[in-house]
Amino acid sequence: MGQKFAAIFLTVFLTFLTLSSLPAEEGMYPITEIDKLPLKQLGFAISAEDIFSENHVSLSDAIVKLGGCTGSFISPDGLILTNHHCAYRAIQDASTPEHDFLAEGFVAYERSQEFPAKGYTVRITQQVRDVSSQVLQAVRGVDDPLQREKAIEKKMKELVKQAEAQHPGLRAEVAEMFPGETYYLFLYVYLKDVRLVYAPPSSVGNYGGEVDNWEWPRHTGDFSLMRAYVAPDGSPAEYSKDNVPFHPKKFLQIARQGAEKGDRVFILGYPGRTYRHRTSAFLDFEYTTHMPFVVQWYNRQIDLLHKLGANHPARALKFKSRIKGLANTEKNYRGKLQGIRRLHLIDQKRAQEQTILHYIARDAQRQKRYGRVLPQIDSIFTRYKKTARRDWLLGYLARSVDALGLAWTVVKAAEERQKPDLERETAFMDRNFERTKMYAAMRLKNFDAQADKMLLLDLLHMMKALPDSLQIPEVVRRFALNEDEEKTKQIIDTLYARTRITDKETLMHLLTQTPQELQTSQDPAVQLMLALKPVYAALKERNQRRSGALRRLRAQWLKIKKEFLKKDFIPDANGTYRMTFGFVEGYSPRDAVYDHPITTPRGILEKNTGQAPFNAPDALLTLLRKEQFGPYISRTTGTLPIDILYSTDTTGGNSGSPVLNAKGELVGLNFDRTFEATINDFAWNHAYSRSIGVDIRYLLFLLKDYAKAQKLLKEMGR
Amino acid sequence: MGQKFAAIFLTVFLTFLTLSSLPAEEGMYPITEIDKLPLKQLGFAISAEDIFSENHVSLSDAIVKLGGCTGSFISPDGLILTNHHCAYRAIQDASTPEHDFLAEGFVAYERSQEFPAKGYTVRITQQVRDVSSQVLQAVRGVDDPLQREKAIEKKMKELVKQAEAQHPGLRAEVAEMFPGETYYLFLYVYLKDVRLVYAPPSSVGNYGGEVDNWEWPRHTGDFSLMRAYVAPDGSPAEYSKDNVPFHPKKFLQIARQGAEKGDRVFILGYPGRTYRHRTSAFLDFEYTTHMPFVVQWYNRQIDLLHKLGANHPARALKFKSRIKGLANTEKNYRGKLQGIRRLHLIDQKRAQEQTILHYIARDAQRQKRYGRVLPQIDSIFTRYKKTARRDWLLGYLARSVDALGLAWTVVKAAEERQKPDLERETAFMDRNFERTKMYAAMRLKNFDAQADKMLLLDLLHMMKALPDSLQIPEVVRRFALNEDEEKTKQIIDTLYARTRITDKETLMHLLTQTPQELQTSQDPAVQLMLALKPVYAALKERNQRRSGALRRLRAQWLKIKKEFLKKDFIPDANGTYRMTFGFVEGYSPRDAVYDHPITTPRGILEKNTGQAPFNAPDALLTLLRKEQFGPYISRTTGTLPIDILYSTDTTGGNSGSPVLNAKGELVGLNFDRTFEATINDFAWNHAYSRSIGVDIRYLLFLLKDYAKAQKLLKEMGR
Repeated sequence: MGQKFAAIFLTVFLTFLTLSSLPAEEGMYPITEIDKLPLKQLGFAISAEDIFSENHVSLSDAIVKLGGCTGSFISPDGLILTNHHCAYRAIQDASTPEHDFLAEGFVAYERSQEFPAKGYTVRITQQVRDVSSQVLQAVRGVDDPLQREKAIEKKMKELVKQAEAQHPGLRAEVAEMFPGETYYLFLYVYLKDVRLVYAPPSSVGNYGGEVDNWEWPRHTGDFSLMRAYVAPDGSPAEYSKDNVPFHPKKFLQIARQGAEKGDRVFILGYPGRTYRHRTSAFLDFEYTTHMPFVVQWYNRQIDLLHKLGANHPARALKFKSRIKGLANTEKNYRGKLQGIRRLHLIDQKRAQEQTILHYIARDAQRQKRYGRVLPQIDSIFTRYKKTARRDWLLGYLARSVDALGLAWTVVKAAEERQKPDLERETAFMDRNFERTKMYAAMRLKNFDAQADKMLLLDLLHMMKALPDSLQIPEVVRRFALNEDEEKTKQIIDTLYARTRITDKETLMHLLTQTPQELQTSQDPAVQLMLALKPVYAALKERNQRRSGALRRLRAQWLKIKKEFLKKDFIPDANGTYRMTFGFVEGYSPRDAVYDHPITTPRGILEKNTGQAPFNAPDALLTLLRKEQFGPYISRTTGTLPIDILYSTDTTGGNSGSPVLNAKGELVGLNFDRTFEATINDFAWNHAYSRSIGVDIRYLLFLLKDYAKAQKLLKEMGR
Repeated sequence: MGQKFAAIFLTVFLTFLTLSSLPAEEGMYPITEIDKLPLKQLGFAISAEDIFSENHVSLSDAIVKLGGCTGSFISPDGLILTNHHCAYRAIQDASTPEHDFLAEGFVAYERSQEFPAKGYTVRITQQVRDVSSQVLQAVRGVDDPLQREKAIEKKMKELVKQAEAQHPGLRAEVAEMFPGETYYLFLYVYLKDVRLVYAPPSSVGNYGGEVDNWEWPRHTGDFSLMRAYVAPDGSPAEYSKDNVPFHPKKFLQIARQGAEKGDRVFILGYPGRTYRHRTSAFLDFEYTTHMPFVVQWYNRQIDLLHKLGANHPARALKFKSRIKGLANTEKNYRGKLQGIRRLHLIDQKRAQEQTILHYIARDAQRQKRYGRVLPQIDSIFTRYKKTARRDWLLGYLARSVDALGLAWTVVKAAEERQKPDLERETAFMDRNFERTKMYAAMRLKNFDAQADKMLLLDLLHMMKALPDSLQIPEVVRRFALNEDEEKTKQIIDTLYARTRITDKETLMHLLTQTPQELQTSQDPAVQLMLALKPVYAALKERNQRRSGALRRLRAQWLKIKKEFLKKDFIPDANGTYRMTFGFVEGYSPRDAVYDHPITTPRGILEKNTGQAPFNAPDALLTLLRKEQFGPYISRTTGTLPIDILYSTDTTGGNSGSPVLNAKGELVGLNFDRTFEATINDFAWNHAYSRSIGVDIRYLLFLLKDYAKAQKLLKEMGR
């Protein structure tokens, strides 16, 4: 299975490198590929089987996907370690008017105090199967890009259904590893009763906030503890007070001595998306068109929400996590833009592509088969550039504007739920619909009509400014974009005065309607989205057609690139289970600067202004000033380590991943990357790609000396 | 002379330290004190006499004060090296509608092309005399603080007049070294014909602009060349085309090999002001009251000027250097505020003062004599805090608002010019009045009525918001602050519509008027300032009375502190000629970060976005990418050095100071400090006090390969 990856480069590894000179390496290795790695030479004290095995208990039994994050079991009773920012919503939900647990921190001294984290699930990878041949069989002879897309989607759904029938209790997913070429089926255990156990106050767990986000040196205690529960018989079950703690097959051992500069570390987890195999046209499109648009639109949203929240504390609280999310992406994209510019990534890619084009042109047969691949990809992006802004604005209309987004879910639900299950969009399949409804309900929680109206008006402004050829007549007409702005404002005011879609009961009712029933709905938001249905349908078709064409072209390009370079590649991250390794090491983020890989209490004391986000609790400051760090002192820095830096290859989704030493013991908790490493999604490089974790010793120190959570420490074997 | 300074610490030096472990040292040593320093042990290859001597030619004959900056002669024909930012106004003046030399850079390939830098003078220190006894004699028996202030001022003027009579052609100045205790008379040569020879474009000379200002790592080529001219007979003279280049007694030799990490360096120059001997009450006043006010007011001005200039390029150009100045101070103060907080400077000072108070209390005699000194200083600042904001707003009315400022100069000139010369305020004495008139005329150049009105309105807003007890009735009445704001605006509009003070001819005429003639003036700005004269007179008296009291108390406090610590001090910087030494060395500006002391072309290429302030000229970028740096390569970094960092003790006024190696050869050009070192003005510390200079090799590379100024290089002996 999967022998295609990780081939020639291994030989190089074994031939030239000695242990001491082994560098950190690019690569989020699919878990099924690590048995090809020379682990011993890389300094590992454990085998591939110790890390992942379908037949034996391995470290992987302790690794979970938790929402969009990673987590790991660290006790026999299902205690899970993940990031503070991954548990953010649960902490917010647990809060009451009397107790803001984001501000105070949350401690369940007893299990009965553990708070059900609604919407959280825990997923453990059980098996992986190569299903490439079945998937590709489905598109053999199909030429139309749209039909190909649909055929692949359908086949993947069938494979899932089939696998789940064969393995009752497990959940299946098919993931595309290489576009149009390799597909894996993953079988997962899902646990649905997850509870919040411990979270430090935000002034520790999110110390430095947006200012320090994506930055090193860092001083954030970004961790939290949760616990997975199952039915008394051990089977996965929804929350019930009768449930019992889950007993994982494996939980991680804590390396109390932590890790020091130069130590080998590795990371297991679920990295989200990377785009390293894309061509220069894609990168150019991102650099010139997509990312600047997102940065602009997100900044507009942030400004607007800040302004609205300025003198309204209650409102500001509602916007907090939304702004946090927007700012996180905005800064990430700025980092990427800087990286592409500084590293001349587009020119680099183009130069490589030129040599491949020359290689292709040297052989008539090759020229015939591959000569048009790159020009075709280029021309797709050239065309896309012209209309992309319109398409995105349309997309954000149903994404950033809650009332319209909910109405769109209602309209889609009515339509999709009529179809046979396998033909529906994923969100509306029986296996997902309950979750879709829950997410819709959760969206209501922070709804603010004023913000919603302002965002809608701003999107309409931008739509109005589009060239005539890109105007969407139905939008222009519905919002009177050809008339005075006052008129548009009036229409919006009326819409929000009349719609009931943001009322939970109404929303839930609407989500059960048939298309015929919806037609008679008087709700103006629903009416609007019904009217825009053809517009969105056309948009979807355009997108599918484009990605169908690109998928096929990218597969061909990868094939010829492989042939030319005579090497195999590691597939881009796609949310599936991966392993990456590196060292605890510093770097030079810019000329004349060297960043050490371990931070110390000095940094917290230096940064602390007493004002958020630099307002560590007084009790913690006092402890840090006392400098009685006992067993947690690093032997290289002589003081308590706070955060650590290492040269692994990570991306979003690796939040909450355990950082493990050569023996597979826990030395840290991954939570971020450096600003320079935001470019990881497009290109990894040993010089600047660094990830950031909480040092396990700071975590233990916080639990013991700050939180006095002795019981939890005991459970963790500390 | 001056044996009081530099006593005990020298013994410590000589006893304990070996050459290799000699640290950098706090201290801007008065030039007359360096013969007490163990220069040889400190690694100097030259003697104190080589650095300063009244009888022999020394390095000091090559060091000049140039406006508020320092400069140095670097050729036998009077070529002066100073900073780009020191020559800024001259470069701006040289510019024409056809040539913006700030943007293009300025090169005089021939001497005839050198541009007269109006308003610039060059000052060379000739002699220094201790005149403490004469000055202090004048206040013996005088008890009233106001009378003491006046007596000291008068005595200093007399000493100046007397010295200048004795030394025709020289200019004298008396400087207070220790408050109320030590006074030095300096004799200076003044050269008045200074011309601009070379300036790189701002995109080199001010690379990084406000973003990088006060920051390390730095990549700025902040240098320019000027030339001093004299009459054909060698005497100082105003500009004339018949003048000839000045031949200095000494010019600096250039150390082509530059300086590397760990090398001894020293700096000669004219540091402006430090406040290290002040008490905690002063520091607390600065921290809680003065600096926050300045930061706020300067930010308001910057915002306002930015807004006004937003869509008016011509206006934006007028505001450029003003915004630059405001932003420079604003960021400096932010740095200081951060430094005071992080270093707990106020607590530190207080703790030291407590031990001194205990020492005082242990002896009845001491208690009687010194017991009240510190409490009295404290109570002066407690009182001052209550009214300071009103006083400053009043001050800025005649400082930030050009029309009112000019009117105030006119009113003061009429009054002061009536008095005997020695009794006038310095600016209106015969020896200074021409210069005062020239500065007034220069103020007109960037005058903008709209900005002036907005600033005035903003100051009035802030005055209106003062507590009732601080309202100034005359201001309230004149600007109708008790009425609707529209009324205030109307008054301002009328004022600006009618005043002619911003017309150069009118202004120059008004500056010749007697008080009686002014009374009949119809100009509303003049009328206003005449009406406010008693208000400003009261303000001046308050200030003089306070500083008189403080001067005496500070002298007493310093005396008892010296007695307690059993050591002498180095006087605070006061614009007089000083020497400071240190090493080329990096530092850790914050936890887990180490900054190397030499930057490289990598930094320019990394920072360059193509947008100001990171828009290095293409020709330079091409040269840097070529990496052909020949003789300018640093042997430690292996590439061209750009800027260097060193642990000397500097402050504002050291801009343009030469950085010299142990042999007294030029290795760099000082132009800035690090953000952490803005706190230098209050406390120097080896851990964080670092100054920043252009590496001489970058300077030579720019002249040779970028500017192709071979003739100038030849003149400099390169």
